[in-house]
Amino acid sequence: MEKENTIRKTIFKYTNEGLMKQEDEIVSEYPLTMIVNGEEFATIVCSPDHLDELVFGFLASEGVIRFQSDIKQMSLDENRGFAYIDLHVKQPVRQQYFSKRFIGSCCGKSRQFYLHNDVKTAKTVMSNIKISIKQCFQLMKTMQSGSVLFQQTGGVHNAALCTANELIVSRSDIGRHNALDKIYGHCLLQKISVRDKIIAFSGRISSEVLLKVSKIGVGIILSKSAPTDLALKLAEDLNITVVGFIRSDKLNVYTHPERIVEVDES
Amino acid sequence: MEKENTIRKTIFKYTNEGLMKQEDEIVSEYPLTMIVNGEEFATIVCSPDHLDELVFGFLASEGVIRFQSDIKQMSLDENRGFAYIDLHVKQPVRQQYFSKRFIGSCCGKSRQFYLHNDVKTAKTVMSNIKISIKQCFQLMKTMQSGSVLFQQTGGVHNAALCTANELIVSRSDIGRHNALDKIYGHCLLQKISVRDKIIAFSGRISSEVLLKVSKIGVGIILSKSAPTDLALKLAEDLNITVVGFIRSDKLNVYTHPERIVEVDES
Repeated sequence: MEKENTIRKTIFKYTNEGLMKQEDEIVSEYPLTMIVNGEEFATIVCSPDHLDELVFGFLASEGVIRFQSDIKQMSLDENRGFAYIDLHVKQPVRQQYFSKRFIGSCCGKSRQFYLHNDVKTAKTVMSNIKISIKQCFQLMKTMQSGSVLFQQTGGVHNAALCTANELIVSRSDIGRHNALDKIYGHCLLQKISVRDKIIAFSGRISSEVLLKVSKIGVGIILSKSAPTDLALKLAEDLNITVVGFIRSDKLNVYTHPERIVEVDES
Repeated sequence: MEKENTIRKTIFKYTNEGLMKQEDEIVSEYPLTMIVNGEEFATIVCSPDHLDELVFGFLASEGVIRFQSDIKQMSLDENRGFAYIDLHVKQPVRQQYFSKRFIGSCCGKSRQFYLHNDVKTAKTVMSNIKISIKQCFQLMKTMQSGSVLFQQTGGVHNAALCTANELIVSRSDIGRHNALDKIYGHCLLQKISVRDKIIAFSGRISSEVLLKVSKIGVGIILSKSAPTDLALKLAEDLNITVVGFIRSDKLNVYTHPERIVEVDES
């Protein structure tokens, strides 16, 4: 049974015409539990579409897999909200390991914040892609106009994989990290080369978002929202261009402006 | 050393006057690691204010403590981002336990989703508070106008504890769950009775937000954003009134309308 991303429900709506009982569209929140090699690994809540991409992207983000081929078999029980993943590597995946904070004694800068799994999977991005300011506005506009309907149900997040000129694929989710994981999973499943790609994103750029972008391997992230200071330190470190606060005719270039062609670095 | 909630950084701003190098205010993201009874319990990223409230609220949300008096001693190392908590109960706090999904075989409805710690801590709210639609608008407006400056740095979330007529305390954080945990911690530390209180909130009402509200013990949550279907099922179950999409002169009453005085239930 395919799950729906929204349900209908009767609620009380108050407008300047007073209170009325009315049907409304409510966004679905779907718990998905991943069982890896027979052990419960994690439960996430998400919008129930593209679950295969979400599972692949989530496991890659967590450092459990690197390629599609690391997974021997995956099956989804959509009704009960379970994904069963068998890896070629048979050892148990110890989740508690991943939540430990990693404090490097040798490396300075922002790296002391990385969690254990990030040390393995976050990488300096080698992309040479360049993009113009006009293209930044255009890509954000295209992403936003593509999901107007879904946004009307209230605050889902969008992530899109793009070339400098067009959207390749766009994903929505109630969780902004999930939207990025779906994009990551899509790249793995479709074997899309990411070096010359860009991610457009609707949410704020936190350290976690930035680390996901580095794991995916994309050199530019565009967002209508703002970044945090920690995300910017990581972006400087990992060679990622952060463009934020993109609104109609304004934007901010926060890091690595050499990829934005109108920006004179001097 | 007191940490700041924002830092200043030179960035490239593009406006209709072109590109300019300019100072900008960036919101801080601060990693805080909690060591409970000598063991690493969790690392969260947050806005670095009211850290004592955040620690108390977070531990209560996770079911580790119920009252302020469950904590024997707490010390903060703000420079390194560590909180050391000693409980009166000496057994180790097994974090991995909390992440397991709980599937009840006896109870129907939405309860099968609760995680283990939620089973212990989520509770049906017994509040008899009532509020008018006008008061809903007023409280949201007061909360939002109180944090305009901070919102200019981009997307922090606000949570406020209120009576029907006024804000008691308001907290901001880059993480919407943290804003609620700070409110929870404040209630525990100040021993505030919550039965006759309301929470006003800037973020979307997910299942996790709803469960936090039930743990705090508040009967009404107001938000400018939308709820998810799972949050509404839990709200019906746990006797919480959800009022969402509060915008200038419109709002939606999603569950338990009997607490909204203009709503005729028949």
